[in-house]
Amino acid sequence: MKNRITSLFDITYPIIQGGMVWCSGWRLAAAVSNAGGLGLIGAGSMYPETLQEHLVKCKAATNKPFGVNIPLLYPDIEKLMRIIEEQEVPIVFTSAGNPKTWTPFLKERGIIVVHVVSNVRFAEKCEAAGVDAIVAEGFEAGGHNGREESTTFCLVPMVRKAVSLPLLAAGGIGDGRGMLGAMALGADGVQIGSRFAVSKESSAHQRFKERIVNTSEGETALTLKQLTPVRIIKNQFFERVDAAEKRGADIETLRNLLGMRRAKKGIFEGDLEEGELEIGQISATIDSIKPAGTIIKEIWEEFVTCRETLLSSDLNEIQ
Amino acid sequence: MKNRITSLFDITYPIIQGGMVWCSGWRLAAAVSNAGGLGLIGAGSMYPETLQEHLVKCKAATNKPFGVNIPLLYPDIEKLMRIIEEQEVPIVFTSAGNPKTWTPFLKERGIIVVHVVSNVRFAEKCEAAGVDAIVAEGFEAGGHNGREESTTFCLVPMVRKAVSLPLLAAGGIGDGRGMLGAMALGADGVQIGSRFAVSKESSAHQRFKERIVNTSEGETALTLKQLTPVRIIKNQFFERVDAAEKRGADIETLRNLLGMRRAKKGIFEGDLEEGELEIGQISATIDSIKPAGTIIKEIWEEFVTCRETLLSSDLNEIQ
Repeated sequence: MKNRITSLFDITYPIIQGGMVWCSGWRLAAAVSNAGGLGLIGAGSMYPETLQEHLVKCKAATNKPFGVNIPLLYPDIEKLMRIIEEQEVPIVFTSAGNPKTWTPFLKERGIIVVHVVSNVRFAEKCEAAGVDAIVAEGFEAGGHNGREESTTFCLVPMVRKAVSLPLLAAGGIGDGRGMLGAMALGADGVQIGSRFAVSKESSAHQRFKERIVNTSEGETALTLKQLTPVRIIKNQFFERVDAAEKRGADIETLRNLLGMRRAKKGIFEGDLEEGELEIGQISATIDSIKPAGTIIKEIWEEFVTCRETLLSSDLNEIQ
Repeated sequence: MKNRITSLFDITYPIIQGGMVWCSGWRLAAAVSNAGGLGLIGAGSMYPETLQEHLVKCKAATNKPFGVNIPLLYPDIEKLMRIIEEQEVPIVFTSAGNPKTWTPFLKERGIIVVHVVSNVRFAEKCEAAGVDAIVAEGFEAGGHNGREESTTFCLVPMVRKAVSLPLLAAGGIGDGRGMLGAMALGADGVQIGSRFAVSKESSAHQRFKERIVNTSEGETALTLKQLTPVRIIKNQFFERVDAAEKRGADIETLRNLLGMRRAKKGIFEGDLEEGELEIGQISATIDSIKPAGTIIKEIWEEFVTCRETLLSSDLNEIQ
C-alpha cells in the first residue's frame, strides 16, 4: 500500500482531509489520521492560542502523522509558525499566498511542506520553492478559490504535466469514484474537504451539516469574485451579494455587505441564511453525517471496486 | 473493441466529435467518422439548405456512421428535422431544449437520439423521453453551457448514478488522459469539442485556430450569464461585456452589446477581438493544428497508455 503520497506522509491511504475553517479541529484531524488518512487542523479560523490547544489535544488523540493548514494571509502568521515549530508539527499545508515566503523556514526545521495551488504558474513556483508536494484545487471546491476558475478536470492534468512533484487533487472529490477519477487524471492522492466537513467529528454546527446533507446540484456558487472568490451555498446572504453585483455595486459596498465573521456565523454558529456556508459542488452528493473513519473506509472500498470495474469489464471490452 | 457506446453507434472508438457552430461541417464529421470515431455536423450555424448540402457531401465522403447536432432552440427546426428524415441521418444529438419535444419523432424514424444535459434533472428527463444515450457536459466546456455550473468532475458521476443510459462525458476532455478520467468517473465514452475545433478539417478560420493554440490557462470565461451562459476567450468583446456587467447593465443593454452573428465573426471570419470565440478551458493544453484522424489516434493511444500506467504501477503499489 505504498505510493509517493503514502510514503511522503507515512499514511495508509492517499486520502488527505482538507484543513477547513470552523470544521477541522483536533477531533476531525485525529479521527482521519487514526483511520489511515492524513488529518489536517485548519488554522485559518483559530487564534494562535487556539491552535496551540488543538495541537496538544491532537497529539494526545493520535500517534499517527497529522498536519496543519495555514493560509499565508493569516495576520499573525509569525506566531502560528512559532507554535508549529514548538509543537513539532510534522506536516504543514500552506495556501493563499506565495510558497517562497515560508517554505525555507519550515524545511529548515524538517517539516514536510505542501502548498495548495489553483493554476500551473503557482505549481511551478512551488517546485522552485522546494515544497514536497502540491495540492491542485479546482473551481468546484468549497471556500476560497482561484481566479482562473480552472476545474479539477482541466487543472490536475495540466499541473501533472508541468511539475514532477507528488500531486494531490482537490475540488469535486467526495467518494471512491472521484478518487479514481483524480488518479486517472494524474494525481497521486486526493484532498477531500466537503465530505469531512459533514463528518461526525467536524466542529461545524449540526444545522450546517444537515443543510449540506440536503443540498442539491446547482445550490452552490462561486461568488464575491471582485473580493476573494469563495464557493458557498446560495442563501439570503448570497442573494443580497448577487443582487448588489447585478446592480453594479463597487468593491467597498461588497466589502460592507460581507462584513466580518460570516463564515463563523454560518458554519460554526449555524446561521443558515446570514452566514457564509462554505462548501464544494460535490455537497450535492453528500447524503449523511458519518464518522470520519467510516468515510475513509467507504472511499477506499469504493475506489478499489471502481478500479476493478474500470480494469476488468468495460475497458477490456473496448480493447 | 466493444462497449455500450461503440455498439450503439457502430464505431471503433468511443470518441465523439462534438457538433460545433462554424467548425464542424461535413469535412470534419467525415474525417472523424473515417478515423473510427463519430463525427457530428453542427447544424446550429447552418441554414436548412446548408445542412442539406453538408449531409450530401458527408455521405459521399464517408460510409461510416455520422450524426448531426441540433440545438432545439433553432428557429426553423421543423425544416431541419424534415431534412434529417429525408437524408436518412442515422444519429441525431439534440441540445439546448427539452428532450421530450423531438425524441418521439426521431425514434419513430429509427434514428438514434442522444441528448446533451448539464444537470441530473434533465438526465432523468432524457431517460423518461426514451433517448438512447446522454452527453453530460460540464462547466469547463466551450460555447453554451448550464446555469448550475456543475463541472465535469461533479456532473458525470451524479448523472451516472441517476440514470442507467449509455453516458458520454463532455467538457474539459482533450486527450487520452482526460478520456481515462472520464471513464473512471463512470462515462462510457467522451464527446470532444475544442480539440477538433482546432483540427485541420475544422471550418473555423485559421486565425481562430492559431489563437486557440496560443491560449493559456485562465484565458476563457463563462460570460453573459444573464442571457445564455457561454464560454469564450477573453478578448475586447468579452471585456466590454464584463465591464458593462460590473456597472450593473440590464439584460437589454447586454443583448445589444452581444448583437448578432458574433460567433460567426469570431470563429468563421477570424475577428479575434470583436468575435465570440467559443472554446473550452482545455484549450489551454492544445498546442497544434492536426488532422482529425491524427487526433483520434493520439487520444486513443494516450488513453491505452495511461490506462496501463494506472493499472500496473501506481495503483498496484497502493494495493
